[in-house]
Amino acid sequence: MSDMLALTMGDPAGIGPEITVGAWRALHRQGPGFVVIGDPDILTRAGGPVRVVPDIAAARTAFADAIPVLPLSLAAPVTPGHPDSANADAITGSIARAVRMAQAGEVAGVVTNPISKVVLRRAGFPHPGHTEYLGELCAAPGREVMMLACPYLRVVPVTVHVALRRAIAELDMPGIIRATRTTHAALRRDFGIAAPRIAVAGLNPHAGEGGTMGTEERDIIIPAIEALRAEGMDITGPWPPDTMFTPTARARYDVAMCMYHDQGLIPLKTLDMAQGVNVTLGLPVIRTSPDHGTAFDIAGHGTADPSSLVAAMRMAAEMAVNRNRS
Amino acid sequence: MSDMLALTMGDPAGIGPEITVGAWRALHRQGPGFVVIGDPDILTRAGGPVRVVPDIAAARTAFADAIPVLPLSLAAPVTPGHPDSANADAITGSIARAVRMAQAGEVAGVVTNPISKVVLRRAGFPHPGHTEYLGELCAAPGREVMMLACPYLRVVPVTVHVALRRAIAELDMPGIIRATRTTHAALRRDFGIAAPRIAVAGLNPHAGEGGTMGTEERDIIIPAIEALRAEGMDITGPWPPDTMFTPTARARYDVAMCMYHDQGLIPLKTLDMAQGVNVTLGLPVIRTSPDHGTAFDIAGHGTADPSSLVAAMRMAAEMAVNRNRS
Repeated sequence: MSDMLALTMGDPAGIGPEITVGAWRALHRQGPGFVVIGDPDILTRAGGPVRVVPDIAAARTAFADAIPVLPLSLAAPVTPGHPDSANADAITGSIARAVRMAQAGEVAGVVTNPISKVVLRRAGFPHPGHTEYLGELCAAPGREVMMLACPYLRVVPVTVHVALRRAIAELDMPGIIRATRTTHAALRRDFGIAAPRIAVAGLNPHAGEGGTMGTEERDIIIPAIEALRAEGMDITGPWPPDTMFTPTARARYDVAMCMYHDQGLIPLKTLDMAQGVNVTLGLPVIRTSPDHGTAFDIAGHGTADPSSLVAAMRMAAEMAVNRNRS
Repeated sequence: MSDMLALTMGDPAGIGPEITVGAWRALHRQGPGFVVIGDPDILTRAGGPVRVVPDIAAARTAFADAIPVLPLSLAAPVTPGHPDSANADAITGSIARAVRMAQAGEVAGVVTNPISKVVLRRAGFPHPGHTEYLGELCAAPGREVMMLACPYLRVVPVTVHVALRRAIAELDMPGIIRATRTTHAALRRDFGIAAPRIAVAGLNPHAGEGGTMGTEERDIIIPAIEALRAEGMDITGPWPPDTMFTPTARARYDVAMCMYHDQGLIPLKTLDMAQGVNVTLGLPVIRTSPDHGTAFDIAGHGTADPSSLVAAMRMAAEMAVNRNRS
């Protein structure tokens, strides 16, 4: 199996180029090694020593001395902070090529630099984000599950990028069961946790307090937990959302299944903004990404923190090792 | 003005007695001083040196040597961990007497030990909790606002103990405006912050991302912020809920106005379970309480942590000093 990772270019007008250079500086001695699929000139401008390579073998050899790049040309010149939808094809092309390389076993996994949904949507990109596009590229649409992980906490929101009102309306037993099964399998296969301990959050304050503050726990969440427990999972809940992320509570589980986006992302980002990693579970290929956006407002200033991208690289490499073992 | 605080007994079968003894041990040398309105025998059993006193003057004198108690008799014997609704009148009577003492200026403020809504409801208590009962006792029902505070963060949920679905349905501009005005006034008067910096959270993921993930920001929250800014407040938002509680973001505001219970309580309890304090704003009397419940499951074991009650005492005393100055 390859030990190299493919890094997509992301939006070239965002902080992707500078955090790519920063991640290479942090990783070029110890690894994991990676190859960028993108425009080499943008990386040179961001301060990196760059080497255009023809294939993965050459990328592996080059990595200690320079950022290896499989080149891909842009349709429009890039000004940091000023995204251009004319480059949308190159941005999505980088992702598609990285996934094909992972499917072919040329790389161990895919790490993606941030993209802007608004910029891509203007060019006709139909997906709400990376995660859904990857589902389609892998011919597994609807099976992808987003997990956010930092050294202190893993969370999986079972509803994601929808209005809170709609997230509540869409919450159902099959959705919770599907996301939890995918998460359980991925923690075993990719994270080396033999018997994952799963904690399920309630939806309402105090997890509904016996039905006096909401009925979704009784009608949807508890039946889902019972069905999953019957499959042999080590699963608990529904927990009152406000007390399940204290240090004592977190010590009792490996992952928190959350009912909506912010229920999971608030505690994760409150605990650790710099090292959060976004992981897509449920796909045949390994994929991680930094847990932040394109940050057009600071792009090109050289102040962007590459920590989250570095953490994403390390996590993808570790997942590949675990998957290879299993 | 009095420098003593009144401490209610809370549910005597919960951890109230033991944290009261713990708080007295932590505070009896330096203060703030307090008098308990409750059953003296329960406190003796919890390990405290107790002195029954006739009035506040005697309580002040006694405080360095023993827990001063204004006695109040219970209808039923107390077994830790086994609450009895027969004691409901004594529990609520303790709260009512503490409020009267504060209104009369005999004490500087009221600190409440945890009660159980379930136990009181069985005895016919009609209020959802302490906060609403205090509003009624002060003849200011509906004006009370719950703030949670720890050394790292202050949050005010504008909707509180209702199902999440209902919280969204009830969210409106007058509610946000009312809670924010009350909070602004209280931070000035009771917390010594001359020009409070107020951050308002969005309701939806990414604060609705320009209306693509929910419209409450556009229709309700932004108009409320604009109306409050026109009154001269230093107010910002709506902020994406997941990134507004990072250390960098928190440094930019004095209080976060949150749209629902868990949006505010998750980050607060994730950051600091032990020292969270619940403060009721908008009442003529000062009132704080520990940010936890009766904990019947561990009551009587002597393991309960009095930190939150101690923090609640110190905060009430500080608020009284600030209010006196203003």
